[in-house]
Amino acid sequence: MALTDVDIAQDHTLEPIQDIAAKLDIPAEALHPYGTDKAKVDPTKLPDRGKKGKLVLVTGISPTPAGEGKSTVLIGLADALSRLGHRAAAALREPSQGPVMGIKGGACGGGYSQIVPMADINLHFTGDFHAISAATNTLAALVDNHIHQGNRLNIDPRQVTWQRCIDVNDRALRGVVTGLGGRAHGVPAETSFTITAASEIMAVIGLADGLADLKERLAAITVGYTYDGEPVTAGELGAAGALTVLLKDAVLPNLVQTLGGTPAFVHGGPFANIAHGCNTLAATRAALDCADIVCTEAGFGSDLGAEKFFDIKSRAGDLDVAGTVVVATIRSLKYNGGVDRADLDAEDVDALARGVANLERHVENIRHFGVEPVVALNLFPSDTEAERRWMADWAREFGVELAEAEVWGKGGAGGEALAEKVLAGLGEGSHPIYDPADGVENAIERVAFLIYHAGRVEYSRRAEKDLAALKANGWDKLPVCISKTQYSFSDDPHALGAPENHTLHVRELVPRTGAGFVVALTGDVMTMPGLPKKPAAENIDIDADGRITGLF
Amino acid sequence: MALTDVDIAQDHTLEPIQDIAAKLDIPAEALHPYGTDKAKVDPTKLPDRGKKGKLVLVTGISPTPAGEGKSTVLIGLADALSRLGHRAAAALREPSQGPVMGIKGGACGGGYSQIVPMADINLHFTGDFHAISAATNTLAALVDNHIHQGNRLNIDPRQVTWQRCIDVNDRALRGVVTGLGGRAHGVPAETSFTITAASEIMAVIGLADGLADLKERLAAITVGYTYDGEPVTAGELGAAGALTVLLKDAVLPNLVQTLGGTPAFVHGGPFANIAHGCNTLAATRAALDCADIVCTEAGFGSDLGAEKFFDIKSRAGDLDVAGTVVVATIRSLKYNGGVDRADLDAEDVDALARGVANLERHVENIRHFGVEPVVALNLFPSDTEAERRWMADWAREFGVELAEAEVWGKGGAGGEALAEKVLAGLGEGSHPIYDPADGVENAIERVAFLIYHAGRVEYSRRAEKDLAALKANGWDKLPVCISKTQYSFSDDPHALGAPENHTLHVRELVPRTGAGFVVALTGDVMTMPGLPKKPAAENIDIDADGRITGLF
Repeated sequence: MALTDVDIAQDHTLEPIQDIAAKLDIPAEALHPYGTDKAKVDPTKLPDRGKKGKLVLVTGISPTPAGEGKSTVLIGLADALSRLGHRAAAALREPSQGPVMGIKGGACGGGYSQIVPMADINLHFTGDFHAISAATNTLAALVDNHIHQGNRLNIDPRQVTWQRCIDVNDRALRGVVTGLGGRAHGVPAETSFTITAASEIMAVIGLADGLADLKERLAAITVGYTYDGEPVTAGELGAAGALTVLLKDAVLPNLVQTLGGTPAFVHGGPFANIAHGCNTLAATRAALDCADIVCTEAGFGSDLGAEKFFDIKSRAGDLDVAGTVVVATIRSLKYNGGVDRADLDAEDVDALARGVANLERHVENIRHFGVEPVVALNLFPSDTEAERRWMADWAREFGVELAEAEVWGKGGAGGEALAEKVLAGLGEGSHPIYDPADGVENAIERVAFLIYHAGRVEYSRRAEKDLAALKANGWDKLPVCISKTQYSFSDDPHALGAPENHTLHVRELVPRTGAGFVVALTGDVMTMPGLPKKPAAENIDIDADGRITGLF
Repeated sequence: MALTDVDIAQDHTLEPIQDIAAKLDIPAEALHPYGTDKAKVDPTKLPDRGKKGKLVLVTGISPTPAGEGKSTVLIGLADALSRLGHRAAAALREPSQGPVMGIKGGACGGGYSQIVPMADINLHFTGDFHAISAATNTLAALVDNHIHQGNRLNIDPRQVTWQRCIDVNDRALRGVVTGLGGRAHGVPAETSFTITAASEIMAVIGLADGLADLKERLAAITVGYTYDGEPVTAGELGAAGALTVLLKDAVLPNLVQTLGGTPAFVHGGPFANIAHGCNTLAATRAALDCADIVCTEAGFGSDLGAEKFFDIKSRAGDLDVAGTVVVATIRSLKYNGGVDRADLDAEDVDALARGVANLERHVENIRHFGVEPVVALNLFPSDTEAERRWMADWAREFGVELAEAEVWGKGGAGGEALAEKVLAGLGEGSHPIYDPADGVENAIERVAFLIYHAGRVEYSRRAEKDLAALKANGWDKLPVCISKTQYSFSDDPHALGAPENHTLHVRELVPRTGAGFVVALTGDVMTMPGLPKKPAAENIDIDADGRITGLF
């Protein structure tokens, strides 16, 4: 029987986390071990090496059900760089626990390119998500308690925008009424829970620069509006200090290892759609402080995670991206070319030729940010010689570097060709594509026209009202986090390939004054997933000795 | 300015947790460090010393607003035993995070008798409460998803008894309607959240003996009933494996230290009212495996925590209690004697003489369990010579050992007199006061008549129906966990002192088939606290260097 990811991960002998830290000269006083194989790193205790590492951003084509293996390639690439003698590190997002119970499929890579301890990382890990839930829900309780206890701030109960969250896929919490049961039990309100990854506090953790900045951002969170329409902040409720205390450890990056023994900073997991979708700035910075080359990821493709990486995260953290990898698979390109999921095993060069348009668009998009990408072709057993040859020819003709990667089955050894091409192409001078000072509308247009290839942007009536409110509150010069389906460059998830001249529909503009950006919602966004008919939870088990099965 | 508890705790230099473990010869393979000053202990990796420690149970008189300092005395006693050269350990409950944000007052002792790192222990600690919340809420999502996805088990949505939980004081979650928004978003249901300490899974963790037993108990949890009135379990939903995986670390006892450097096992925090209210059996056992004398606590007085300690926890774990301490203060006895809270500083020997009846009842109660108690008089600066002399005379006349303790200000040094008396009185042969095989009604009567001094037990109509259902389902031979106000021996919180011949009103009988007991509700029970008008959260702060203020 084939080994599953969890088998491979559990059979692996991990290096003590102290040894992993030693590879990056992380001193003992900066390392807070959690068990023998996980640790938090205090960035304020890291020595100044007098130099920073080079940053490589791994992104992918538009995701398909065929699977691209972005995290797997990232981890394999980091291991390959280590094998080639470089002081490398990976920086990745933390997985959300809710989906683990829902649909099979992890967030720690796969095969022989995984981060470990995989089960722990996929579950509670070092408690960051739980701390974020606790802070989010404490703030919600403080808001409701304030209204209940006399409402000094004159908060309109119908205009409380702060939502509770929970790291469980629970569709029944999408629409709830709270505060029932009479006067002693609060003020009735219609509200909803999001999954923890969608809490603004997750985004705040993602961008915070130390405790003082964290507290300022938390204080700036808008929780709702008064009867007069004035915004009310967490700071006005006196909540910022307590929330910062709840998050004092969650703000520290976590250190684990890859199966190849490369240090991996795994920290923060904001929704890749309604938030910026990358690991924390703190983790990326800590990795750059310690390693010579750092491989990091952005959720989904160049139109979502990567765009936000350059326009939100890099801007906030003054990061320079030295190289970019766009991960593609022959299967997913064929899917983009119209092949049914069931038929992806069959050779189909014509479909590949049709679907490659999606990859081309992602390559061009990355170039808009001032970086020349390398295409990583993540090989699957079903890929044929003819298909692989076609891809090599395409790359030559299109004028982009392409490297095949076989990291799932071979780990770092299967990523060396990719690593060589990445190293050869390292540069500098990456940049965002808009200036927030030019306003929210400009930012949306720049992204829509340049990256999505939209022909026009249409605002709903609600969005127009939101825009007016943003201007009235002085929030219209913030960067924009566009929430769009990951399946298409357009806001129609069924428009695969590389659609042109479509209309981007902005439905709503949501200020995230703590995170420091405005979320522009296009299409429907579900911030609380549900469980499927047969939840993965039913297959998950553990024996009396602690051996886990059914976890991917 | 006087030092606060958090000042004292933060100024203290902690010993590395490895050094604390070494005091009990806990081997490295049994120790999973969490940072430098917290660890989890794997009981299966502890060596067999060929002997067990002696167990000392610390309980108190009926609690009053004057404060008794039960945890403080326990910690000071453990430190005193260490000072006297004994291989001592403490075993305590984990504090709940929700109340930390509500009302000032910690659960880690006070002054120079604290467990540390106090802020961490009071907040997320090692994540046990969060794991319990995650498991509780995952089970709730699985139940609702089952109904949503076709309801193979024929669960009656109106008879789902499983509640979600959260470790936040949030009154608005006491009464909620979930599943709103239409067909795609679940089945509407009226339900409520409890605080995490009140989840049955907390009680399960409290009594579980290793992973296999944990999984069995989780599988046995009743989540609701079918339309035909048949119970439905978590096991039938296929949830037991996944929940056990979520709880695999939460089931391991935590190790920290007292300010005196005594090892302290701090694990589990079941509601002291609707559950059995002691630290986990796993922690008590691990402590007894490693230490020669272990001081542990039970929530509230002899009528609540101690009764459940003997009748539920000791029975489940085959524990022998070698000694018992009943903590009292002159202030709280005067309060019991009718003195207003504002007047407790004034000498009042007459009030003391009236209030001591409460202490006498607790002493007698402990003797019913086959143990001779020592009274610890926890001194306050306001106690006068005359009052202290009166107490000494009372003890001589009543025939009980009494020792003064001054552990808040002096730590272990202030507990040596108490420690000497405890050591001198160690015995064996403690026992429960009823046999569950004689049925739930007998168990309730035994406790009501012998411990509460009730004259009769009255069942509501609801309770009578519940009793019939217990019998129909074969659950009427389980131990009984009586939920009663902690302020009185009766079910009337205003009947202070030592009321006689009252009627115990059993309102409801709730089967806890995973924990393995039946909860008998008397009076109102609030399983979700609210925040006060000025929540403690507003005073809690942290500076850029991580120094916390306002946390007690």
